[in-house]
Amino acid sequence: MKKYFLLTPGPTPIPPEVAQKESLPILHHRTSEFGEIFNEVIEGLKYVFQTKEDCFLLSSSGTGAMESAVANLISPQDDVLVASCGNFGDRWEKICKIYKANVTKIDAEWGTAVNPQEIKDKLEKNRNIKAVFTTHTETSTGVVNDLKTIGEIVSKTSAVLVIDAISGLAGQPLFKDEWKLDVVVSGSQKGLMCAPGLSFIAINQKAWNLVEKSTSPRFYFDYKLMKKSIPKKETPFTPAVSLIVALAEAIRIIKKEELENIFKNIEKLAKATRAGVKALNLELFAKEEVACNVLTSAKLPENIEGDKLVGDLRKEFGISIAGGQDKLKGKIFRIAHMGFIDQFDVIVGLSGIETMLKRAGHNITPGKAVSAFKEVL
Amino acid sequence: MKKYFLLTPGPTPIPPEVAQKESLPILHHRTSEFGEIFNEVIEGLKYVFQTKEDCFLLSSSGTGAMESAVANLISPQDDVLVASCGNFGDRWEKICKIYKANVTKIDAEWGTAVNPQEIKDKLEKNRNIKAVFTTHTETSTGVVNDLKTIGEIVSKTSAVLVIDAISGLAGQPLFKDEWKLDVVVSGSQKGLMCAPGLSFIAINQKAWNLVEKSTSPRFYFDYKLMKKSIPKKETPFTPAVSLIVALAEAIRIIKKEELENIFKNIEKLAKATRAGVKALNLELFAKEEVACNVLTSAKLPENIEGDKLVGDLRKEFGISIAGGQDKLKGKIFRIAHMGFIDQFDVIVGLSGIETMLKRAGHNITPGKAVSAFKEVL
Repeated sequence: MKKYFLLTPGPTPIPPEVAQKESLPILHHRTSEFGEIFNEVIEGLKYVFQTKEDCFLLSSSGTGAMESAVANLISPQDDVLVASCGNFGDRWEKICKIYKANVTKIDAEWGTAVNPQEIKDKLEKNRNIKAVFTTHTETSTGVVNDLKTIGEIVSKTSAVLVIDAISGLAGQPLFKDEWKLDVVVSGSQKGLMCAPGLSFIAINQKAWNLVEKSTSPRFYFDYKLMKKSIPKKETPFTPAVSLIVALAEAIRIIKKEELENIFKNIEKLAKATRAGVKALNLELFAKEEVACNVLTSAKLPENIEGDKLVGDLRKEFGISIAGGQDKLKGKIFRIAHMGFIDQFDVIVGLSGIETMLKRAGHNITPGKAVSAFKEVL
Repeated sequence: MKKYFLLTPGPTPIPPEVAQKESLPILHHRTSEFGEIFNEVIEGLKYVFQTKEDCFLLSSSGTGAMESAVANLISPQDDVLVASCGNFGDRWEKICKIYKANVTKIDAEWGTAVNPQEIKDKLEKNRNIKAVFTTHTETSTGVVNDLKTIGEIVSKTSAVLVIDAISGLAGQPLFKDEWKLDVVVSGSQKGLMCAPGLSFIAINQKAWNLVEKSTSPRFYFDYKLMKKSIPKKETPFTPAVSLIVALAEAIRIIKKEELENIFKNIEKLAKATRAGVKALNLELFAKEEVACNVLTSAKLPENIEGDKLVGDLRKEFGISIAGGQDKLKGKIFRIAHMGFIDQFDVIVGLSGIETMLKRAGHNITPGKAVSAFKEVL
């Protein structure tokens, strides 16, 4: 018998009233009953994305939505710019190359953010660039990019700006229309407090012009089919009905709470968590001025094996946090504070990490992390 | 307050013990706890497909799995043969053309099955055909194709045989390895008694040779990435965790019941339903010698508008059956008897249909359909 604490930057825990909706009897997807729920979800997503333009829902992981953006916007040999500051930014490059685009890449050092000026420079150097791909909150490092400035820059060119906001949406401020973000993709299992399996696409007219021209093959991911289905309050293909019914409930909760308050709460949690991590005598991984609010990343001392710490936490205490990815494997841990994760969940996480660090011989004062965390709150 | 009866050929109703699993707390997808469940599902799918070779799981609708087969097997300009006997067979043609294949098509009259001899002829005429795409049970018409004979024919050529078994798997006999079917795709929301949102791919070495050669772009659908993840008991990207946990339970039920018994029960239900439909003074749509077991399709008299009948049934009695698709729109109805649909569900369906037909002035004796149904059982 063990309690289970999910503190990973996706999937995140689900409110019980949302989870329960998943197990309701299945509605047929071509009925007015389901159509009403679907429509509520699409309108709710527009609120979450802060857009008045098209929103689509796809039954897939967030990566499916990322690929859908490339498949719908990019034709072989198109010039594209990928501005990456981590593993998920790099994913844009992988997908673009698979779709045979000519990729120019900006690689910000992991732990820092993309420099908007570099994007400006690259776009000035090559006016044929069709699209710029970057990341809202980079889950692998815990950094947030300055999308407002990037949006301003790209909007003055003919290029389309495409954002992976999978881990940041509904957690870290993002205002799609106001910030002039042309395409934003996201997923259900992070700030939206739902099970994984759904992804979302918000797209404007500027991007739509590329959709009309793209010769890349796509059927399941085809935005034209999605757009045609929206007035019928349905999806082109059988969607993950039970996840959508649950998502409707999650969006109701978000609307009631209001995005602005959610952003504020999460920002406070982020500040408190960073204080807690420092009180563990650990160094933050993401540079503090660009650290995102939805998760905190922390460096581990060289003598502590990160994967073992993460594994032991899960095995002994049922606490799931995330380790490092790729070149950060074993070197950092990441703890989420978004969606349905509240201050007491983070306290559990900090407390568990403290125990494991102490066992590994790391110099800490028991309880100090939680104190520092609470002091900021 | 209304009871809800789901009798459509997908999605189908879900056993309560399966549905409940959906709302359990979310497991992280890179943990040993989830890995064990994922592994159980993959092994269970091998039983359901009746294969000893590779099985993959994808978070998408069945159509996503269909597209994945085309994207992984077919390169532009490849010659392919599509053998269609309905709307879902036609979908193979659509997808193959989007991937720029040269499509030769066999069009069996709707309501009849594909003639295996025609496949043999086309393959003899063009020895460059890389793959043959066809359908197990054609959901739009209620027909089952003779996959055993087709498998025998295609196995003697260099072509790869690709089957859409979305509505038939775990309902209508299919023995992947024994029948020499190279690739079979399916979905969670039909015979597997789960919510929609998951799809499956079973693939053998003969097909794998094409995967190695395909130049079509794919990332989310990439079989090579999926194959690499299987030994780690995970998927390349965050999967629909809650649906997979539920699917594990559904597969446990299927294994306990045993496929052979499921096939027998559904066959009996199909025979009884056909008798019931005839007792409603309606003509069966699918030719009886090729009618599938998982659903029954019936023609409506010209004076009865099919979409209205289906809509009224749902609105007044909460009974969901399906109407006709494409050229059959308004002309037929379809009622499912697979997965968690039992004899009493079908009785509800027949009884509701009878009421609506009588109201529309159709000549029937009340109760006769149910009597005919029960007599066969």
